[in-house]
Amino acid sequence: MQTARSITVTAAASLTAVLGLGVLTSCGTAAGQGDDDYTGPPVNGGTLRVAFDADITCADGRQAGNNTALNVSRQITDSLTDQDPETGEIVPWLAESWDVSDDSTTFTFHLRDGVTFTDGTPFTAQPVKDNFEGIVDLGAKSSLGSTYLAAHFPGVNNTTVWADPDSGSHIEFAGFEHFARTAERGLFDFLFLAEGLRLREHKGQVFDQDVVGRPETATVLSALAAVTTHIGLTGTFNSTFNEPYDLARTLATLDRVSGGRAAWNVVTSHNAFTGANFRRGGYLDGADRYRRAADFVSLARTLWESHRGSDGSFDWHSDFFDVHGTFPVPETPQISPVIFQAGDSDEGRDFAARHAEVIFSAHTEAEDRKAFRTDIDQRLAAVGRRPDSLKIYPGISVILGDTEAEAQERYREVRRAQVHGPGAIAFLEQVWGRDLSGYDPDGPLPDVGPDLDNADITRGRVRHEKDYGAVARRWRALAEEKNLSIRELVTEVSGRGGTLIGTPAQVVAKFDDLTQQRDVDGFIVVPHITPGGLDEIVDRVVPELQDRGVYRTSYAGSTTLRDNLDLPAYNHSTSQEVSA
Amino acid sequence: MQTARSITVTAAASLTAVLGLGVLTSCGTAAGQGDDDYTGPPVNGGTLRVAFDADITCADGRQAGNNTALNVSRQITDSLTDQDPETGEIVPWLAESWDVSDDSTTFTFHLRDGVTFTDGTPFTAQPVKDNFEGIVDLGAKSSLGSTYLAAHFPGVNNTTVWADPDSGSHIEFAGFEHFARTAERGLFDFLFLAEGLRLREHKGQVFDQDVVGRPETATVLSALAAVTTHIGLTGTFNSTFNEPYDLARTLATLDRVSGGRAAWNVVTSHNAFTGANFRRGGYLDGADRYRRAADFVSLARTLWESHRGSDGSFDWHSDFFDVHGTFPVPETPQISPVIFQAGDSDEGRDFAARHAEVIFSAHTEAEDRKAFRTDIDQRLAAVGRRPDSLKIYPGISVILGDTEAEAQERYREVRRAQVHGPGAIAFLEQVWGRDLSGYDPDGPLPDVGPDLDNADITRGRVRHEKDYGAVARRWRALAEEKNLSIRELVTEVSGRGGTLIGTPAQVVAKFDDLTQQRDVDGFIVVPHITPGGLDEIVDRVVPELQDRGVYRTSYAGSTTLRDNLDLPAYNHSTSQEVSA
Repeated sequence: MQTARSITVTAAASLTAVLGLGVLTSCGTAAGQGDDDYTGPPVNGGTLRVAFDADITCADGRQAGNNTALNVSRQITDSLTDQDPETGEIVPWLAESWDVSDDSTTFTFHLRDGVTFTDGTPFTAQPVKDNFEGIVDLGAKSSLGSTYLAAHFPGVNNTTVWADPDSGSHIEFAGFEHFARTAERGLFDFLFLAEGLRLREHKGQVFDQDVVGRPETATVLSALAAVTTHIGLTGTFNSTFNEPYDLARTLATLDRVSGGRAAWNVVTSHNAFTGANFRRGGYLDGADRYRRAADFVSLARTLWESHRGSDGSFDWHSDFFDVHGTFPVPETPQISPVIFQAGDSDEGRDFAARHAEVIFSAHTEAEDRKAFRTDIDQRLAAVGRRPDSLKIYPGISVILGDTEAEAQERYREVRRAQVHGPGAIAFLEQVWGRDLSGYDPDGPLPDVGPDLDNADITRGRVRHEKDYGAVARRWRALAEEKNLSIRELVTEVSGRGGTLIGTPAQVVAKFDDLTQQRDVDGFIVVPHITPGGLDEIVDRVVPELQDRGVYRTSYAGSTTLRDNLDLPAYNHSTSQEVSA
Repeated sequence: MQTARSITVTAAASLTAVLGLGVLTSCGTAAGQGDDDYTGPPVNGGTLRVAFDADITCADGRQAGNNTALNVSRQITDSLTDQDPETGEIVPWLAESWDVSDDSTTFTFHLRDGVTFTDGTPFTAQPVKDNFEGIVDLGAKSSLGSTYLAAHFPGVNNTTVWADPDSGSHIEFAGFEHFARTAERGLFDFLFLAEGLRLREHKGQVFDQDVVGRPETATVLSALAAVTTHIGLTGTFNSTFNEPYDLARTLATLDRVSGGRAAWNVVTSHNAFTGANFRRGGYLDGADRYRRAADFVSLARTLWESHRGSDGSFDWHSDFFDVHGTFPVPETPQISPVIFQAGDSDEGRDFAARHAEVIFSAHTEAEDRKAFRTDIDQRLAAVGRRPDSLKIYPGISVILGDTEAEAQERYREVRRAQVHGPGAIAFLEQVWGRDLSGYDPDGPLPDVGPDLDNADITRGRVRHEKDYGAVARRWRALAEEKNLSIRELVTEVSGRGGTLIGTPAQVVAKFDDLTQQRDVDGFIVVPHITPGGLDEIVDRVVPELQDRGVYRTSYAGSTTLRDNLDLPAYNHSTSQEVSA
């Protein structure tokens, strides 16, 4: 009848629901706590008030999958099967019996006769079929409410706190290994490595306020492949400075060495500062960078698939590449590594809609997340792709405490450490285009305005803002309005959005809530300590997510990153079609 | 007085040598076995005949280090210390006492008074000093007679027997891991991976008689770094199709991930067939390939050392590269990976003398080995390098049996499997430039001559011979002289030289003998089975080498590949000087 991964169905029939809720203890801070305080013997009738510790976002059983939502929706719907509260055994309910195919992918349910919906309509196979198809039609929104986590290895950025005594090396392999093993212990989908193609410079000097240097990404990921078994290995590789044949060989080998866990975060660049490292003519006109990236990915996929043809041969002639030959790495478990995209420009979003399978999103606030999902869904529809073929993972930081107050105090400490005095001055200098080392970071903003002709004072860092004059005016207004020092201003404007702050239980409730809203498919956790910053999250948050029933308890049948991410199998013809 | 790794010294003094040889049992097949067969009680006087199972190549104690040579040279020389035969304790001999510095690098010996040489000259510190300095002056020849082994991962070549039921995948990582762990269990210096840049083609088709395809070398080595601790990781990387900044980042990261075990076998190419895979203009004029390789290595070393300057910056403008910037990978344990060279042309040898630290030599026969060492020594001297700064490791195959006859029979089986019928025809077609599929491999050579205009019938394979017409004439003469079939001819002309065939004891004696001749510094074992072909050698040959006292019993203090190879520490100024 249907190939299904879940056998729950929302056909509301006339059978009375007997759900065996057991005893619910109400949570002290939850909304809806009653003022009745009855302690006598059990009575029939009356009102049973149940407290939930998370918002019941959606009563549609096709969408809601966490226990809170199910506790509500099960009052008004029935299911094909039930579970014996004593033995845990799955027992007949709307279905009298069922058959499972040998390969466990087809479930045939034989429905009970004489059942009617509340309006008297007879219960048939059609509404069951409609409900299952409705799940598929919902696309990305239909996944049954699980929280998915991934991990960003903290690197060269202004959120990592290098001054913390717990911070270690971000260069030694032991640190990467610890991080990867921790993320895998936490059953994360993947870990994510950035790349550092050139040391950042500030005022003509290598910028050394935090740390300097970074090992090559593919080499580190391959070593991590040998000491892990399930976690996905996502590396950032530039499509401007690499060449398709080289990178395709490396990524195919990584996919093979890891048994199908490779992913490529495609980034573009056109800056000559970085390009000077590479080779004559190694950088591009800005207008061409996404055109080259698209051509690069399409060619790489052609190489990865070349053994599907007769002899591994390929032939590619375009504005950017003029190559033909044979590809020496045999087909790999995923065929193509999972393609990630991270830039937020209009061209970046279009590129993602055409080529990517995961977006590392910068949209951390609720409204932004919703608008971003809508925008991406529209772009996907425009190129004929299903919504569930592109996952959205925003970055997120987590600050835990034993109490909410302790967590808030830790957050303030972390922000103070993230924005130290010299760092605040350097941050301001990036926008001002001037040497501001004579100013007190704890004093007011500089009396001079920005030197807009000197916008290259910092090189090798992503520039998110185009108009530094406007940024300077906005910051000055904010500082005057709130009476902020330089350091306080930088603390206010440089923070990473969407940090979850609280006790493990509070953070877990927020994760679950965010997941229920369906604007994201998972989160990339960005710790502020290297390499141990993930341990606390894996030790304290993951078990609570599991207790709540919204997080995997093993990798189970997942063997590839595509499995971890619940992505459709790689399909050449689709990818080619949309990239045309 | 001297910093020394050995305290043995060849000062022959007037003390009578009492060496406590113990009872020597003579080996049944050894030369020099006497015809006296005395079985009565011990007597004074007479002749003691001692049988050794290896040639006593050199009685110079500064050179000879194995037990056989020492057993002879100790009859005519004395040493600073002796060893108590009962307790094994090191006791005074020519030195009455000695002091060892706190860091165990300086040993000061206080010499006994009243000792004279056999000619009456008084024994003083001077001859001891001269002997120690003589060891240093001998360069590569002075190492004290240890056997060094390395391992070549069997790949796409005509010595691997893919038809053997024990042959596994040469693509799956598990095979590489097994091989690396076995080599490390055998305390090998390094393992060696080739590279496959394009699938070989024969008669216009991908050549698939054995296996097809190969994973990318650096990616595999990095994964191996994570599952091994001491073995060197040598990868072959082409200097024509790679770019210095890219490859330097990858190799520096491999050196870091492995804790200082990376090596780069520099190969060159100028064939357009391979180049077509890569990028526009990705191949070179043949005359420029070693010029580019030299420039590439010098630039890569400049990148690896760039942090020795103030800020990691570099600036390089040459015929081949025009780059400047900063290098993002911090300095690594070895600073530069160990540089290997493998080509045998005149330019290749010059390149090795100027830039390399290890040669993977093709010279396996005794005379060739000696001539090659002499040639390399001369080239080293011409550029002012010490002989011990460049190690020579020829490839070697080993065939073991419980008896010599069994080993010889196994060798014949292996050769039959290596040269199967279709393979023999394809081998002949490479030289003949013609389709010979109509000929019987077990019949005589083709009646037609070679088509010399069609020498490109095979592409993607190294061509060792320049004049195929001459080769064909030579082979035809050989076949007529010995009445050989096609297959017998190919078996005769395609074999790998220098295969050691015998019982483990016989093979060990040959290894030791070869090492004593000083024409090579070690051997790269090339098994014919993937990936398990090394196990037998590690299980049966290595323990016998250890028993003989000519093979390491642990990696001891070795932490880098340079340590394994006993190479001098990397020195920028030397390498720059000789590459000028």
